[in-house]
Amino acid sequence: MSDQQPVQLRVALAQVDTRVGDLSGNSDLVSTWTAKADEAGAHLVVFPEMTLTGYPAEDLVLRESFAHASQQAVVDLAARLAEEGHGDVAVVVGYLAHTEGSGPAPVDQPPTDDLDSPGDANPRRGAPRNAAALLHGGRVVAHYYKRHLPNYGVFDEARYFVPGRELPIVRLHGVDVALTVCEDLWVEGGPCGVAGQAGVDLVVSPNASPYERAKDDLRFPLVSRRAAESRAPVVYCNQVGGQDELVFDGDSLVVSADGELLARAPQFVEHLLTVDLSFDPSAKPERTAGRVGALTVARHVISEEPVPPFEPRPSTIVKPLTDCEEVWRALVLGLKDFIDKNGMPSVVLGLSGGIDSALVAAIAVDALGADRVYGVGLPSRWSSEHSLADAEDSAKRLGLHYSVVPIAPMVEAYEKSVELSGVAAENLQARVRGTLLMGLSNQHGHLLLATSNKSEVAVGYSTLYGDAAGGFAPIKDVPKTLVWELARWRNAEARRRGETEPIPQNSIDKPPSAELAPGQQDSDSLPSYEELDAVIADYVDRDLGMAQLLERGHDPDVVAKVLRLVDIAEFKRRQSAPGTKISLKAFGRDRRLPITNRWRESLPSVREGAATA
Amino acid sequence: MSDQQPVQLRVALAQVDTRVGDLSGNSDLVSTWTAKADEAGAHLVVFPEMTLTGYPAEDLVLRESFAHASQQAVVDLAARLAEEGHGDVAVVVGYLAHTEGSGPAPVDQPPTDDLDSPGDANPRRGAPRNAAALLHGGRVVAHYYKRHLPNYGVFDEARYFVPGRELPIVRLHGVDVALTVCEDLWVEGGPCGVAGQAGVDLVVSPNASPYERAKDDLRFPLVSRRAAESRAPVVYCNQVGGQDELVFDGDSLVVSADGELLARAPQFVEHLLTVDLSFDPSAKPERTAGRVGALTVARHVISEEPVPPFEPRPSTIVKPLTDCEEVWRALVLGLKDFIDKNGMPSVVLGLSGGIDSALVAAIAVDALGADRVYGVGLPSRWSSEHSLADAEDSAKRLGLHYSVVPIAPMVEAYEKSVELSGVAAENLQARVRGTLLMGLSNQHGHLLLATSNKSEVAVGYSTLYGDAAGGFAPIKDVPKTLVWELARWRNAEARRRGETEPIPQNSIDKPPSAELAPGQQDSDSLPSYEELDAVIADYVDRDLGMAQLLERGHDPDVVAKVLRLVDIAEFKRRQSAPGTKISLKAFGRDRRLPITNRWRESLPSVREGAATA
Repeated sequence: MSDQQPVQLRVALAQVDTRVGDLSGNSDLVSTWTAKADEAGAHLVVFPEMTLTGYPAEDLVLRESFAHASQQAVVDLAARLAEEGHGDVAVVVGYLAHTEGSGPAPVDQPPTDDLDSPGDANPRRGAPRNAAALLHGGRVVAHYYKRHLPNYGVFDEARYFVPGRELPIVRLHGVDVALTVCEDLWVEGGPCGVAGQAGVDLVVSPNASPYERAKDDLRFPLVSRRAAESRAPVVYCNQVGGQDELVFDGDSLVVSADGELLARAPQFVEHLLTVDLSFDPSAKPERTAGRVGALTVARHVISEEPVPPFEPRPSTIVKPLTDCEEVWRALVLGLKDFIDKNGMPSVVLGLSGGIDSALVAAIAVDALGADRVYGVGLPSRWSSEHSLADAEDSAKRLGLHYSVVPIAPMVEAYEKSVELSGVAAENLQARVRGTLLMGLSNQHGHLLLATSNKSEVAVGYSTLYGDAAGGFAPIKDVPKTLVWELARWRNAEARRRGETEPIPQNSIDKPPSAELAPGQQDSDSLPSYEELDAVIADYVDRDLGMAQLLERGHDPDVVAKVLRLVDIAEFKRRQSAPGTKISLKAFGRDRRLPITNRWRESLPSVREGAATA
Repeated sequence: MSDQQPVQLRVALAQVDTRVGDLSGNSDLVSTWTAKADEAGAHLVVFPEMTLTGYPAEDLVLRESFAHASQQAVVDLAARLAEEGHGDVAVVVGYLAHTEGSGPAPVDQPPTDDLDSPGDANPRRGAPRNAAALLHGGRVVAHYYKRHLPNYGVFDEARYFVPGRELPIVRLHGVDVALTVCEDLWVEGGPCGVAGQAGVDLVVSPNASPYERAKDDLRFPLVSRRAAESRAPVVYCNQVGGQDELVFDGDSLVVSADGELLARAPQFVEHLLTVDLSFDPSAKPERTAGRVGALTVARHVISEEPVPPFEPRPSTIVKPLTDCEEVWRALVLGLKDFIDKNGMPSVVLGLSGGIDSALVAAIAVDALGADRVYGVGLPSRWSSEHSLADAEDSAKRLGLHYSVVPIAPMVEAYEKSVELSGVAAENLQARVRGTLLMGLSNQHGHLLLATSNKSEVAVGYSTLYGDAAGGFAPIKDVPKTLVWELARWRNAEARRRGETEPIPQNSIDKPPSAELAPGQQDSDSLPSYEELDAVIADYVDRDLGMAQLLERGHDPDVVAKVLRLVDIAEFKRRQSAPGTKISLKAFGRDRRLPITNRWRESLPSVREGAATA
């Protein structure tokens, strides 16, 4: 910057919903949203991480044909944006780069231990990179390779990517913009620290940060810390939308160098967030290049000339959602995107009159509209009188398609052919229902929704190929106590809006029962859901051992019973449908335990005996 | 070594079958096999990688209670071996170490980029290590933390472990022994190179190297290269046994410094392999310690005094198995260990008279004995006359328990309740069978075996919750062409032994059919299995893109059809039972593709159009 006048820039954050594997569709998305940003007068537009490939692309990353196509797509996109008249806007997009032949740096070379490889990569795989490119004037001006590769929880980036070693800083209208990606923000002394040392005006960070309850509470303080380290505002653009077990909530934000929240986008919707930034050239430190800390800083210049002064507009700062609303919208969007991105016309589910199916039906109607939802009542000889009435009430309140198929004729046919008793007889009923629903799914093209909640999935309180059957399980990560809370919240929300309550009060109030045997109630074989969910949160989500669980005040008998049930249900979970993650640790890719596993938690003093039991 | 006489050592390799999570049982195993080795006069015994925890322990590694118990178990084991009178034998065991509070080295500190962390680990997790300890005289003399962490294919070690920085070399009876672990062997210039520079007499390498077809052909040349680098013999001890989707084949071996194969253990059985080594002290380089290459070498001394001279005994060098025998034994052991380690009394499967179920039944009988195997014939209205006869023939040849349950009454009951046609009607029959078999499983405690082969799993030619139902799928990774080859081989093997051929010739010879519709044959909807399997090998196992597939000479129409089927069947595979991996890339943890995935292979020139289709 050549004079001491404040220098301005209008930055747009394109919080979009990409599709994994859809290079062409995602390029169209960038084109559409760049046009919107250009129309809004933005000089710089930031898209989420891995915009062109979608995130997470999993083992697609390792397919050379896909990596090469991604590499080509970013070059084509730069040219296209210029052809479409947006060559003057700087656009930051994420993509998969593939630097052939230049795999991980050699290891174990003296004198320094340069193990700069995220685990020992498959030598066959080349060197894929989680990359961000800055496009301007029809070409790729600069690219950044993500340095910090998360490899915990649902993330496997050490499987896929080689970390970067260079920090590009691009001067745009006299403003120095550093490129980083996602996890880099979580590391103190990482690329933001380098940017701060080298001297920048602005840091941009494309993200793909999956939703977890209350994660939005973490993001602002985190971005604030990195802004302080960078001595510059940080632009954090997160993607939105569902991808298999993950849902991304957006919640994009901009924080000033001194930690002020300048702009914040709404969660769970696509949104163009703009912010007008002003930089004081006199306050700037020296600008350096070359080796700074762990990275090599490469400076690029697009333009020195500041944009003509303009009147800044106020930015949107969306207020956070309440916990229940946030979870609800995560579940709705997670389901909607799974169905729509997989091209399914409609969904079917069994309506038992119980709270789980009533809640899933309400989520499905909010996600897809009542006309795409088919409910089926499947009463058995053990169904209570209220069950069918409550199921019908649920269907009526929601306005979905509803039919009834009593299961007795099928159950009897099996019972005449083979002798089944006890749990085998109970499971038979659930499997007859599963078979009927899958028949309807195959006949009409509906995707079957499983209605299992997290408490059931944890303790294996479901029938494999029975009520666990389905292509998607919307409340798989929702503990039963939260199922009730969400139902009450959704009804209250309907009252607030002056609409019909979607969930029958009776389904909320009655004691839970699988109704697979006469008079059966969940409480016959399980502890109270309050106790159960508290133990699951500590054992599953927090991975606590026996001593810690008892320290937390759980009843020892309840703990012993719950842990045994959770441990032996692993084989069922391995075959369960995917469902939207909302918790710290969801079943699925987030928690990877062996099926064959002799470890059983016990107190250290008795461990040896228990481990051999 | 203080004089110029050759110095001797008898080394035992304990190729054992551990159980994941069974710290106590695995400690017992070490005790038992150390006693055997001591009795055989061994001075040093080497056990496989992660002996005490079993391998792979997956997310158990992240549970602090388990890590602490493992840490304690190795200390207790050292004391116990001495108490049991084996304190004079040096024992190398693998275990999980947990170095609390000393997590990954800090990253991004100038002046060097010391990103010595395998991906960015979860800050919550502490610092687990894949460790090997040398036990002697009642205590842990030295420990090594695995340096190279495989993070490709089925391996996720960057998720779990922090790499080591130190190479311990222990002097035992005047012989300098370096400790390494598994993947370290695959890296040129890795710990073996450091050992060679520092000066050692012997390198030991505990392994957990899963079976893949023809992998044994790789091991000897690999170990030879590392022996040359180490300038010392290398002792490679691999585990044996099944663990969920993996089976370990043993194949432990010892290679001299100049690349001679000194000893080799049989595959797929527990085995104590001993080798008598002789070291020439005059030929040895200088011994150094401290920083050598990438590692810090720490030297420990147990004893300088050589063992009294003894007459060396010849070692076992087992000849490699043929391809079919090797695969057969992998499938048998993979199934046997899954059933036995999970405490299942017996298995049940549907016998259709077709080759897949006939082969699975034969594998099950070889694995468990006929008395633990229950076959059920489940004829439908579309079953051919030969089907039931061939199923009965299969059961008789194998001597397993056999019963017949016609499915018509159940199918008719469904058909009276809901209208199903086409694929929905076909799938109904498969699901009635699945429900019947699961009923028998629940009633009698049998584990249900699914009989799907890899070709079917690849193209989704199976019914979810129907023939795909089951707790284990023994031939899930066996392509159909190999199914036939194995059947012929197993029958030939029976003839060679003068036994009844276990598989009906008619099941081998007849054209494959799912028999879910009148006159149906697999060839109505699929290409020939020769063509199909060739495309699957290139697309699934080798991950080739469209251009490469066509270069390989596959028919373009077949490729287009097969790829479409493989791509859209991902949701089915996600819910499929585990089965033994035998190929380069098995479905399951080895190949992780998103369900929601718009990428479709096409030629580069038409890619854009196809990607949006």
